[in-house]
Amino acid sequence: MKQYIVVKTLAARVIKRSKKAGLPPGSLVYVGDKKEDDIKITIMAYDAHKFQEKELKTVDESFKFKKKPAVAWINVNGIHKPEIVDEVGARFGLHPLVLEDILNTNQRPKIEDFEKYLFVVLKMLHYDDETNEIRSEQVSIVFGKDFVLSFQEREGDVFDSVRERIRSGKGEIRKTKTDYLVYALTDAIVDSYFLMLEKIEERIDALEEHLVTDPKPETLQDIHDLKTEMIFLRKAVWPLREVISGMQRRESPLIMKSTQIYLRDVYDHTIQIIDTIESYRDMLSGMVDLYLSSVSNKMNEVMKVLTIIATIFIPLTFVTGLYGMNFNTQASPFNMPELNWYWGYSALWVVMIFVSFSLFVYFRKKNWV
Amino acid sequence: MKQYIVVKTLAARVIKRSKKAGLPPGSLVYVGDKKEDDIKITIMAYDAHKFQEKELKTVDESFKFKKKPAVAWINVNGIHKPEIVDEVGARFGLHPLVLEDILNTNQRPKIEDFEKYLFVVLKMLHYDDETNEIRSEQVSIVFGKDFVLSFQEREGDVFDSVRERIRSGKGEIRKTKTDYLVYALTDAIVDSYFLMLEKIEERIDALEEHLVTDPKPETLQDIHDLKTEMIFLRKAVWPLREVISGMQRRESPLIMKSTQIYLRDVYDHTIQIIDTIESYRDMLSGMVDLYLSSVSNKMNEVMKVLTIIATIFIPLTFVTGLYGMNFNTQASPFNMPELNWYWGYSALWVVMIFVSFSLFVYFRKKNWV
Amino acid sequence: MKQYIVVKTLAARVIKRSKKAGLPPGSLVYVGDKKEDDIKITIMAYDAHKFQEKELKTVDESFKFKKKPAVAWINVNGIHKPEIVDEVGARFGLHPLVLEDILNTNQRPKIEDFEKYLFVVLKMLHYDDETNEIRSEQVSIVFGKDFVLSFQEREGDVFDSVRERIRSGKGEIRKTKTDYLVYALTDAIVDSYFLMLEKIEERIDALEEHLVTDPKPETLQDIHDLKTEMIFLRKAVWPLREVISGMQRRESPLIMKSTQIYLRDVYDHTIQIIDTIESYRDMLSGMVDLYLSSVSNKMNEVMKVLTIIATIFIPLTFVTGLYGMNFNTQASPFNMPELNWYWGYSALWVVMIFVSFSLFVYFRKKNWV
Amino acid sequence: MKQYIVVKTLAARVIKRSKKAGLPPGSLVYVGDKKEDDIKITIMAYDAHKFQEKELKTVDESFKFKKKPAVAWINVNGIHKPEIVDEVGARFGLHPLVLEDILNTNQRPKIEDFEKYLFVVLKMLHYDDETNEIRSEQVSIVFGKDFVLSFQEREGDVFDSVRERIRSGKGEIRKTKTDYLVYALTDAIVDSYFLMLEKIEERIDALEEHLVTDPKPETLQDIHDLKTEMIFLRKAVWPLREVISGMQRRESPLIMKSTQIYLRDVYDHTIQIIDTIESYRDMLSGMVDLYLSSVSNKMNEVMKVLTIIATIFIPLTFVTGLYGMNFNTQASPFNMPELNWYWGYSALWVVMIFVSFSLFVYFRKKNWV
Amino acid sequence: MKQYIVVKTLAARVIKRSKKAGLPPGSLVYVGDKKEDDIKITIMAYDAHKFQEKELKTVDESFKFKKKPAVAWINVNGIHKPEIVDEVGARFGLHPLVLEDILNTNQRPKIEDFEKYLFVVLKMLHYDDETNEIRSEQVSIVFGKDFVLSFQEREGDVFDSVRERIRSGKGEIRKTKTDYLVYALTDAIVDSYFLMLEKIEERIDALEEHLVTDPKPETLQDIHDLKTEMIFLRKAVWPLREVISGMQRRESPLIMKSTQIYLRDVYDHTIQIIDTIESYRDMLSGMVDLYLSSVSNKMNEVMKVLTIIATIFIPLTFVTGLYGMNFNTQASPFNMPELNWYWGYSALWVVMIFVSFSLFVYFRKKNWV
Repeated sequence: MKQYIVVKTLAARVIKRSKKAGLPPGSLVYVGDKKEDDIKITIMAYDAHKFQEKELKTVDESFKFKKKPAVAWINVNGIHKPEIVDEVGARFGLHPLVLEDILNTNQRPKIEDFEKYLFVVLKMLHYDDETNEIRSEQVSIVFGKDFVLSFQEREGDVFDSVRERIRSGKGEIRKTKTDYLVYALTDAIVDSYFLMLEKIEERIDALEEHLVTDPKPETLQDIHDLKTEMIFLRKAVWPLREVISGMQRRESPLIMKSTQIYLRDVYDHTIQIIDTIESYRDMLSGMVDLYLSSVSNKMNEVMKVLTIIATIFIPLTFVTGLYGMNFNTQASPFNMPELNWYWGYSALWVVMIFVSFSLFVYFRKKNWV
Repeated sequence: MKQYIVVKTLAARVIKRSKKAGLPPGSLVYVGDKKEDDIKITIMAYDAHKFQEKELKTVDESFKFKKKPAVAWINVNGIHKPEIVDEVGARFGLHPLVLEDILNTNQRPKIEDFEKYLFVVLKMLHYDDETNEIRSEQVSIVFGKDFVLSFQEREGDVFDSVRERIRSGKGEIRKTKTDYLVYALTDAIVDSYFLMLEKIEERIDALEEHLVTDPKPETLQDIHDLKTEMIFLRKAVWPLREVISGMQRRESPLIMKSTQIYLRDVYDHTIQIIDTIESYRDMLSGMVDLYLSSVSNKMNEVMKVLTIIATIFIPLTFVTGLYGMNFNTQASPFNMPELNWYWGYSALWVVMIFVSFSLFVYFRKKNWV
Repeated sequence: MKQYIVVKTLAARVIKRSKKAGLPPGSLVYVGDKKEDDIKITIMAYDAHKFQEKELKTVDESFKFKKKPAVAWINVNGIHKPEIVDEVGARFGLHPLVLEDILNTNQRPKIEDFEKYLFVVLKMLHYDDETNEIRSEQVSIVFGKDFVLSFQEREGDVFDSVRERIRSGKGEIRKTKTDYLVYALTDAIVDSYFLMLEKIEERIDALEEHLVTDPKPETLQDIHDLKTEMIFLRKAVWPLREVISGMQRRESPLIMKSTQIYLRDVYDHTIQIIDTIESYRDMLSGMVDLYLSSVSNKMNEVMKVLTIIATIFIPLTFVTGLYGMNFNTQASPFNMPELNWYWGYSALWVVMIFVSFSLFVYFRKKNWV
Repeated sequence: MKQYIVVKTLAARVIKRSKKAGLPPGSLVYVGDKKEDDIKITIMAYDAHKFQEKELKTVDESFKFKKKPAVAWINVNGIHKPEIVDEVGARFGLHPLVLEDILNTNQRPKIEDFEKYLFVVLKMLHYDDETNEIRSEQVSIVFGKDFVLSFQEREGDVFDSVRERIRSGKGEIRKTKTDYLVYALTDAIVDSYFLMLEKIEERIDALEEHLVTDPKPETLQDIHDLKTEMIFLRKAVWPLREVISGMQRRESPLIMKSTQIYLRDVYDHTIQIIDTIESYRDMLSGMVDLYLSSVSNKMNEVMKVLTIIATIFIPLTFVTGLYGMNFNTQASPFNMPELNWYWGYSALWVVMIFVSFSLFVYFRKKNWV
Repeated sequence: MKQYIVVKTLAARVIKRSKKAGLPPGSLVYVGDKKEDDIKITIMAYDAHKFQEKELKTVDESFKFKKKPAVAWINVNGIHKPEIVDEVGARFGLHPLVLEDILNTNQRPKIEDFEKYLFVVLKMLHYDDETNEIRSEQVSIVFGKDFVLSFQEREGDVFDSVRERIRSGKGEIRKTKTDYLVYALTDAIVDSYFLMLEKIEERIDALEEHLVTDPKPETLQDIHDLKTEMIFLRKAVWPLREVISGMQRRESPLIMKSTQIYLRDVYDHTIQIIDTIESYRDMLSGMVDLYLSSVSNKMNEVMKVLTIIATIFIPLTFVTGLYGMNFNTQASPFNMPELNWYWGYSALWVVMIFVSFSLFVYFRKKNWV
C-alpha cells in the first residue's frame, strides 16, 4: 500500500504544471504544495586559503562575500516564496525563464547554457523508510564564473559530505572553481540513487522469495506497484544521462578540462543506474509470468483433488444406488438375486475396494497423487 | 462507452483524406464535417505603443491595419468555406499546398519553411467533461515578418490568455515580433495538453482503484479504451516534438535568437508530455496483467468452493447410499448387520462428522478455507 | 476466410523470386502468374500548348511523338511479355538491371539514380470489395528529361484523375516537366492507400463491436488475419517513406525545386499512413487481450453455474440419502426416529429450504448470481 | 522433431569456438566436425577470350594459370586440413587472422579490407528435404586484382549456375573482373535464401491450417521450433546486410563502379529477406495467441458438457433421493403422501421432464448447446 | 536454486557502490567483500630477446625491471588493500579517479584515455561447475608505452595461455608492444565467454528436453532463473562492444595499426556473443509460452477425466435413484410397475450399458478418449 503512494506523488507532480496554463512565460508561480516553513539561505565562500560560512537573512548580504573569494556557494532551502527567488534572479541577472523553471518543480532534469552562466535542473530522491516512499525533490543549480546558486524544495539534502569537504579543505574542492563544486553536488545526488536501487533490490528479493513460497494476489499487486515505480524512476533518471553528457561535452569556458574527467566518471555511474533499472524492469516482467503460472498450478491442484474424489466415489455411489433399488426379488430370479446371497454384501465390498484401488493406481501413474 | 466515441472520431479524421483522392494537389476541399456556422475573422494589431482589435467582415479590411503596426494577428474561426481561405491565401501570397493543408484537417503537426513565411500545423485538444470525449481541432498558423494568420475549425480556443496579455501589454509580447506571438500560441496549446493528461490520470487512478476492489469485464474494456486513446494521443503529440525542435533550430530570419530560448522551454514541455504518455501506456499494460490475474483468482475461488463442497459431501453421500441398499439382512449375518445394531445410526453420525472434520482440517492446511 | 487469401497472395509474391535463382543478373524473366491478355501501350504527349493521346501498336511509334512535346508519358499495361519490355529498354537505353526489376514484381519500393534517368518502383494496392482481398500490383516508373515510362501488371489503375488533368489542362501539370508528372502518379498511389485504410478501419470497428457483444473463436481468427494483413501492408508502405524522401532530397537535376515542395507533401501523407498502420496494429494487439479475457469470463460464468447447482443440491441429496438408509428403527430408539415422527417429513422440507436459501444468499453476496 | 535438430546444429556451431580458447591468435585449428573426405581444389581461369578449368592436386599448380588470364577462381572444397589452407595463405600472402577465420566456421558474415585483397565471409544455407533440416555452411571468399579464392566446408554448393555462365561466356561475367565474379557468387547465395524462405512459408501455411482445424500440443511445439529457426536464420542474414552494403560503399579500388549497381541490387534482395523473416516472426507470434485461445476454447467446451450434464441430472437425482426416503407414511398424513397417490409416480415424471426441458431451453438461450 | 545465487551476487555488486556515497571522488575504498588473503604481485618483463618473470614483494622492485625491457607486465592479484593500489598509482602517475575505479569493482566495462596511458575495465566470468554459479571478477588494465598493469580481485584467471606464449616466445607477442599484450588479455577474456555460453546452452537444452517430456513448476522457475542470468550477462557484455570498438578506433599513439586488425577480430567475437545472448533470450521467452500451454493442456486432461466419469455415471446414478424410490406399487398400476416385472432388472442393465456405450462413442468422436 505504501509503495502506491509514491507513484501517486510522482505522477501528480508531473501534471501539476496545468496550474500555470495560461500565464505568460516567466510568471513566477510556485506549483508545489503550500508550505509555511521559513526559507533558509546559507552561503559558503571559499578559495584555497580562505573559508567563510554563514546563514543569510537577505540575499544582499551575500554580495559582501561574493566579491572576494574564488567561489561563493549560495544555497536556498525552500522556494515557496517566489519573491525571494525573484530577488536572487535580479541580483545575479538571471533570465526570467530560469526563475520560472526554478519554481516549477515539475521540470525534467536538463542543462541550459546562458553564456554567462549555466542552468542545471536535477532530481534528488529520498527513500523514506517509515512510509516506504520515494520522494522526489527538484534541485536547481545556476553557476557562473565565481558563484554557484542551488535551490531546494525542502530542508535536508545529500550535500553534507560536500560541505564537510569544503570546511575541512580535503580533496580538490578548495583548489578548484565553481565547475568542480557543481560536479561534487551532481556526484552526491547520483550516489544517492544507488541507495535507492539498493532499497528497491531488497524489495524485489523479498517479492521473489514470496513468489516461490507463497504467492498471493497481493504479491502481483506489489510487483505491479514496483513496476510502476520503475517506470517513474526511469523517467527521472533517463534525462540525467543527457544532462551530464551535456555538461561534459559543452564547450562552455565555465567547465575546465580537468573537471571533465570527473564528469565522465559521473556519466558512467548514470549509465550504470539506467542499466540497473532496465534489468529490474525485465526481472519484474519475468516475475509476472512466474506468478500467473503459479496461479495456474494452484488451480490445477484444486481441479485434481476434485477429480480424484469425484472419480473414485461416483462409481461407488452408483453401485450403492444400484442395490438400493426396490426391484421385487420375488417377482423374478433375475431381479437382483445378489441381495439375498450369503456373501453378497461382502463381495460388494471387495469389488468396491478393488475399483478404488485401481483408480488410485491410475492416478498415481498419471502423477496426480 | 463515452471514451469509445473519442477514438472513433480521431480515427475517422485520419482517413477522411480519402475524400480527396484523385483531385489535383492544391484543390481546396474541406474534409471535415459539414457546418453551417458563420466564419468569424478577428484581427489584433499591435506594437509596443499601439493596440487595435476588431472583428472583420472581409479579409480586405485587414490591410488597412496591416501596414501600420509591427504585428497583425488575424484569426479565422471556421474553415468550412474554402473561398474565404482562398481569399486570404491570395492576399498574403500563400502557396496552394498551404491552403490545401489548412483545409485538410487530417494533417500531422508539421512545420514548413516557404522563405517569406513559415507554415505551422498544430493540434488543439479539448476535453469535454460532459461526454468524456477528447476532441481534436487543427490549428494552422502562417507567419511572416509582420503578420500571423491562424485558422481554427471551431469557435473556442485556448488563446484567451494570450489575447489578454496583448490587450494588457503585460510581459514581453507587445515588445516582440511575430515569432514571439507564434511561440505564445504554441505554448498555450502545449499547456492545454497538461490539462488533458490530468484528466486521463484521474481516470487511470479511478480504474486502478476499481481493479483492486471490484474488477469487472467492463474494467478491462475501459483499460482498452484508455489504451486506444493513448495510442491516438501519442500520434498527435509525437510529431509536435519535431515541429518545435524544427522551429527552434531553423535558420529562418523570422525567428529571433531571444525567442529560441522560449521555444527550448516549450520543447522541454513537449518531451515531458511524451514521457508521461509513455508512462501511462506502460501502466495500462501492467493493469491488463493485473486484471487477468484477478479474473484467474476469482475462478480459483469458485473452483475451491465447488471442490470443498463436493469433496466433503460425496463420501458422505456414498455412505448413506451404502446403508440404503436392500441387502437381505436375514440371508446372512454378514449382510449389513450394522442396520440392526443398537448404536448403528449413532456410530454412523460419528464417522461422518469425523470425516467431514478431517477434510475441513485438510483444506484449512492447504489454505483453501 | 477471404482475408486469409490476401495474405497468401502477398506472401507468395514475396518469395516467388526463387524461380529466378541461378539465372545471370539482367535475365528478363517474368515472375508473376501466367497471363494471356494483350499488352496495351498508351502514350500521352503534352506541353503547355499541345496535347496528344494515342494507343500504340509498337514502341517505335512513340518516337514520332517523343521528339516534339515537353513530356511524353508512355504507359505499358501488362509486363508478361519480356520482349516488349526489352524493346522499350533498348529504345530508351535502360540498364539491364532496371529491365529485370520491372519484370520481377517482387521488388520492395525503391528509387535508383542512373544519372540520365531515375528508376522508381511503387506498389499499387486494390481493395476488391467482393472477395475482401487487398491485391498488390507493382508500378515501375522510369523518367528522364522528357519522357516518363510506367509499367503496370494489369489493366486498371488509380491514374485516371491524372490523365483527366492532363487532358483538361487543369492545375500545374501541363506547365511542368516530367518530375511533376511522376509526383502526380506517386500522389495518386499514396492517396489510394487512404481508401485501403478506410476499409480496414471499417473491419476493425466491426470486429470491435463483435468483441463486445458476442465474441467467438472466429473473432480471434479475424483479428489474427487482420494483424497478418497489417504486417504485410506495413512491409509494403514502410520503404515508400525512404523512396519519397529519397526523391525529395536527391540532387538529381531531373527534380526541380518547385516539385520538391509537392514531394514534401506526399512524404507527410506517407508518414501519416505508417502512423495509422502502427496504431491499428497496437489496437489489434489490445483486442486480442480483450478477446482472451472475454473467453476467460465466459468460462467463469460456466463454472459459476455448475458450482451453484452442485453446491445447492449436493447437501440436499446427502440428506435424502440419509433418510433413505435402512437402519432398523425397531432395533433402537436412536436409529432414525425422525422417520416415524408426525412432522418429520415436513421439518425436513423446512430444513432443506432454509439451507438452499442460505446458500443462495451467500452466492448473492459473493456476486455470483 | 526434425526441425529441432537444425537449431541444435546451428547453436552448437556458434559456440564451438570455445575449442580454441587459449590459443594464440592466428592458430590454424579447424573447429568443425571431423571429416576424412579428400579436399578438392578446382580452378577456373578466364578472360573475355580464353577459358580453362581444371582440378588441382596442389595449390602450386594454380600459379601456372594465375599469371596469364584476367581472373583465376580457385575453389577449395573442404577445409578440415589446416595445412592446405596454410599453403594457400602463404602463396597469396594472406594475413594469419584471415586463415584463422577461414577455418573457424563460426564466423558471422563479414567483410574486411586488407588493401591488397578483400576478405568476405558468407553463410550458405541448404534445406535438406529428407530430414527437414536447414544446414549452414561457411563460404569464405578472398579476392584481389586477378584472383578469387573461395573456401567451402563441403562438396555441393549453389554456384553451378555461375560456373555454367563462365563456361558458356553468357552475360557479363567473362568481360568483367574479379569483383563481378564475387558479386555473382554472393548473388547466388542470396538467391538460395529465397528457396529457404519458400520452404519455411510452406511449413507456416501447413501449421496455420492445422491450427484452425485441429490444434494439438505438437502444433505449439512446431510453432516454437519454427520461431527458434527464425531466430537463428535472422542471426545469419542480418549481418549480410552490412556485408553487402559494406562491399558497395567501400572505396576499395578492387570494386568498380559498374559492379556497385549490381551490388545495390543484391542489397535490395537482402533487405527483402530480412523483411520477410521479420514478417514470419510476427505471424508466428500471432499463431501462439491463436493456439492458446483455441486450447482455452476446448477447455470451455469440456466444461460446458460437464456443466450441462451435472446441472440437468443433479436436481433429478435429488428428487429420486427424496422419494427414496423411508419416512413412515403411516405415522402421519404429511409424511410423503405422494408415495401412495394414484398418479404420484406419473406426476413425478411430468415434473422431471419439465425441469430438464426448462434447463435445456436455458442453456440454448445461453448458447451453450 | 544454485543459479539463483548468481543473480544475487551480480546484482549485489551493482549497487554496493552505495557504500561510498558521500566520500570525495578519488577516495580509495574497496567495495567488495572483506578478504584476508595476501596480495600477490608478479611481473613479466620481456622483449624479443629477453624474458624475466618474478614474484614481487613491493612495487618498487618492479622499477629495477621496468627500465630495461620493451614491455613490463605487472599483475596484481587482490585489491582489498587500498594502500598497495595507491602505491602503484603513485609510482606510475595514475589519476586518482583511475585508482578509485580499480578498487570499485562495480564498474561497467569501459575505456578511458589519459593520453600518457589508457585505462580499460573488463569483466572476467567464471563458471563454477560445483555450484552452477557464474561469478564475475573485475579486471582493470592500465597500459602506457612500456608497461601494462593488471588488477584482479582474486587468484585464478584466464591468462595462463598468454603467460605461456610469453614464456615460450611463440606467436607475435614477444615481438610486439604493450598494445598487443592488452589485446591478448582481452582476447583471452572474450574467449572465456564462449565457454560460459556453452554451459548455458547445455542448460537450455536440458530445460527444453524437460519441457517436452515432463514440465513441472520448477521448470518455469529454472527458465526464469536463466532469463535473469541472461539479463545480467547481457549487462556485462553489452558495454564490452563499445570498449573494444573504442580501443580499435581510438587515435591513441599507444595502439599500432597492426594491432587494430587483431582488435577488429575480438570485436567480431563480441558481436557474436551479444547475438547469441539475444538469441537465447528469445528462445527462453518462447519456452515460457510452451510451458504455460503445457500447463493448460494438463488441466484440460484433468477436466476431461472428470467430465467423462461424471457424464457417464451421473445419468446411471439417476436411474438407480429412480428405482430406489418408495412409491407404493400397490396404490396404482402406474407406480413403477417395472419393479415387479420379470425382466425388469435385466432390461435396466441393458439400458444402462447402452447409455454408457453411447456416451463413450460420443467422447471418442470428440477425441477426448
